[in-house]
Amino acid sequence: MANPFEHIIRVTWGDCDPANIVYTGRLPWFALDAINAWWEANTGHGWYKMENDDNLGTPFVRIEMDLMSPVTPRHPLRCRVWPNRLGDTSVGFRVEASQDDKLWFAGNFVSVFTQADAFKKTQPPEIIREIVQANLIPAT
Amino acid sequence: MANPFEHIIRVTWGDCDPANIVYTGRLPWFALDAINAWWEANTGHGWYKMENDDNLGTPFVRIEMDLMSPVTPRHPLRCRVWPNRLGDTSVGFRVEASQDDKLWFAGNFVSVFTQADAFKKTQPPEIIREIVQANLIPAT
Amino acid sequence: MANPFEHIIRVTWGDCDPANIVYTGRLPWFALDAINAWWEANTGHGWYKMENDDNLGTPFVRIEMDLMSPVTPRHPLRCRVWPNRLGDTSVGFRVEASQDDKLWFAGNFVSVFTQADAFKKTQPPEIIREIVQANLIPAT
Amino acid sequence: MANPFEHIIRVTWGDCDPANIVYTGRLPWFALDAINAWWEANTGHGWYKMENDDNLGTPFVRIEMDLMSPVTPRHPLRCRVWPNRLGDTSVGFRVEASQDDKLWFAGNFVSVFTQADAFKKTQPPEIIREIVQANLIPAT
Repeated sequence: MANPFEHIIRVTWGDCDPANIVYTGRLPWFALDAINAWWEANTGHGWYKMENDDNLGTPFVRIEMDLMSPVTPRHPLRCRVWPNRLGDTSVGFRVEASQDDKLWFAGNFVSVFTQADAFKKTQPPEIIREIVQANLIPAT
Repeated sequence: MANPFEHIIRVTWGDCDPANIVYTGRLPWFALDAINAWWEANTGHGWYKMENDDNLGTPFVRIEMDLMSPVTPRHPLRCRVWPNRLGDTSVGFRVEASQDDKLWFAGNFVSVFTQADAFKKTQPPEIIREIVQANLIPAT
Repeated sequence: MANPFEHIIRVTWGDCDPANIVYTGRLPWFALDAINAWWEANTGHGWYKMENDDNLGTPFVRIEMDLMSPVTPRHPLRCRVWPNRLGDTSVGFRVEASQDDKLWFAGNFVSVFTQADAFKKTQPPEIIREIVQANLIPAT
Repeated sequence: MANPFEHIIRVTWGDCDPANIVYTGRLPWFALDAINAWWEANTGHGWYKMENDDNLGTPFVRIEMDLMSPVTPRHPLRCRVWPNRLGDTSVGFRVEASQDDKLWFAGNFVSVFTQADAFKKTQPPEIIREIVQANLIPAT
């Protein structure tokens, strides 16, 4: 089984709200950063280069997250990320974020592939399909 | 049936990414703003006063969103919000956001009630329960 | 003397940090929102339409802000905005933000005009120059 | 002369606006992250622990930034940070951010020290004064 990629986030004061924990609205942002980092680590190109250099977009169509415990700046946030679903024109990612060895939040995110300059659904390039396939850990 | 509250968001340039649409990470933020506005409109207190003046927290435990169409600054984003679930110590909200009369994204969000200074799950005050109950449109 | 435009910001919980006040990093963001609103109110086009429909960019080259008092969600944030400087290829804005009738922060912001698709400095269209000129309150 | 601390920021797609560069509103945020990282590296405590564990706040009273070139996700953003001013109850920082060996933006930021739970101006603890003093490169 493929070994999930890990992206580490340095949580800071500015991410927190008056309850002294990370504001809920920042958590999807963190998860997206982790997915972008997965692309960068596995294909060499994050979303910025995918769009601008490869004309390949991956807009999201579905977000779901369970928030188990409040995140704080006291520990780095370790986000494990892997593709958990691959369709003809779509890809899904699982993100599991832990701090201090406990699971803090987890989510599933689904994107479609698009031809970026036309914002039109498309099949991904074969090399992208192969990289996702090689790292796939299907959702159970 | 209760008439959903509407919160209007002025989408701007700074909310958008290089694909010329609102960055996905901003959309949960918009939905949370709409839920906070619901509290403010219906109880007089948004999250800031609930926490600081009422010692009542509502941390989120679940987020799910379907993103149908890309949001842009060309139209105001109209977010309809209503409670769609009320448990003993939890409350759920539905947010449906439209632009130019089309549904742009929709989501379900679940919070638990906490005693804010102890970050401990609690039942909400009776008046809060009544207000939520009076506006409830149960999920089907 | 021209009467400054006012843009009202609804400050929320998510804008605040654990010190229970708006996070410093959000304040320049608020000021920029106010400047964008000035463009929209005075020319019909905010930055999004200026760039996409008019091929006119206004990237910032200088930001300076004095922060007098902490901003909170207890009051709307009233931002008064006006152009305070007009050069051949540049424009400056003054933003003064108050809550509850006290001045909370104030700043000066300088942009250059660019041909957006070339990211090249340019003179603004004559109509833009006239609108800025008509609203100018020169810095003293 | 003290050697400036360097904080590296991974700029991403979500930081950028439709002009394909980092949104201006994000740049002060990046500079603040760099200052927070300086505190963490030099005292062991970033703002979160300073406030919560040490009852020491450092709210900002002045921000000024010159933006020389647009920041993109194509390179890491290297932020050099150092204290450039130390008053009886205040401290100033210089941040110089470069990408690909060119200076991208630079700024000066002034904070006052406060007793955090009273939000009252105060002198910093002697150990903090010594650490700042040891790293000071006075503004010229």
